[in-house]
Amino acid sequence: MARRIPDCPLATAVELLGDWTTLELLHDAMDGRVHVEDFRRSLRWAPDVVVARLDALTEAGLFERRACPESPSTDDYVPTDLGRGVRPVLLALVAWSNSQLRSDSRSLVLVDSRTGRHADPVLVDRATGERADTPHYVFAAGPGASEAMKARYPDRPSACT
Amino acid sequence: MARRIPDCPLATAVELLGDWTTLELLHDAMDGRVHVEDFRRSLRWAPDVVVARLDALTEAGLFERRACPESPSTDDYVPTDLGRGVRPVLLALVAWSNSQLRSDSRSLVLVDSRTGRHADPVLVDRATGERADTPHYVFAAGPGASEAMKARYPDRPSACT
Repeated sequence: MARRIPDCPLATAVELLGDWTTLELLHDAMDGRVHVEDFRRSLRWAPDVVVARLDALTEAGLFERRACPESPSTDDYVPTDLGRGVRPVLLALVAWSNSQLRSDSRSLVLVDSRTGRHADPVLVDRATGERADTPHYVFAAGPGASEAMKARYPDRPSACT
Repeated sequence: MARRIPDCPLATAVELLGDWTTLELLHDAMDGRVHVEDFRRSLRWAPDVVVARLDALTEAGLFERRACPESPSTDDYVPTDLGRGVRPVLLALVAWSNSQLRSDSRSLVLVDSRTGRHADPVLVDRATGERADTPHYVFAAGPGASEAMKARYPDRPSACT
């Protein structure tokens, strides 16, 4: 399908992830799973489906193969830095889902493993520490913007609604 | 499809969003679009598809209808608080996509509208301001966890890999 705006980073992200199931694989990988058999048991997919998906995501640069120490004829799969970079997306999705539940009804929470304290992940501007999911922070055309992107976004926008 | 873990908040989030195109509609809405015609022009979908999607997302609680001042026979659609709550997910996806590009090649950037400065959104723990996308912060079974969730996640985990 032709993209409406070829250089849209949201479309790029969605295309690279390809499918919501990629989030499940990355979620499992970031929980520490590396063996095909562990992914298979966790996700209850057929082994050839697990391998096909992991191979596709390896091709896309989100995972890399590593020799499995216990079974030299099979490979393990570990997320690359690019794959690990999806973690904020996962954490934001879980936080959004949890925001609809009272704190004593939540099934899965983010915890500081050093203290056991429940964490509440929020998005801030790295430079100022100020919340970035507010109307002050808006999208604007960047230095690499195509004409289509420039037509859609000003360089210097006003606050959003 | 039966869920592997019925109370998984990631699965809940994915089911509620339903489709990646929901992110496009919310992205447009948070850019200020409210009229069906504006969504239609932006997304290049057929008008009945736009209305069907917005109606479904209204049913799901992500949008609400508002009388259109210029055309009393049609409704506008504005995101609810729940819909606006998806913004950190959108910002995290765009930030991840942009992380693969040099800063002078980025097409869409987040800007502080008060200063024009480019922002770099990162996920932190609200209480401490510490980066939350690090191995110290891990998922654990929450107070509402089902037996399936408890079998998968300890209450008090160690740092992840």
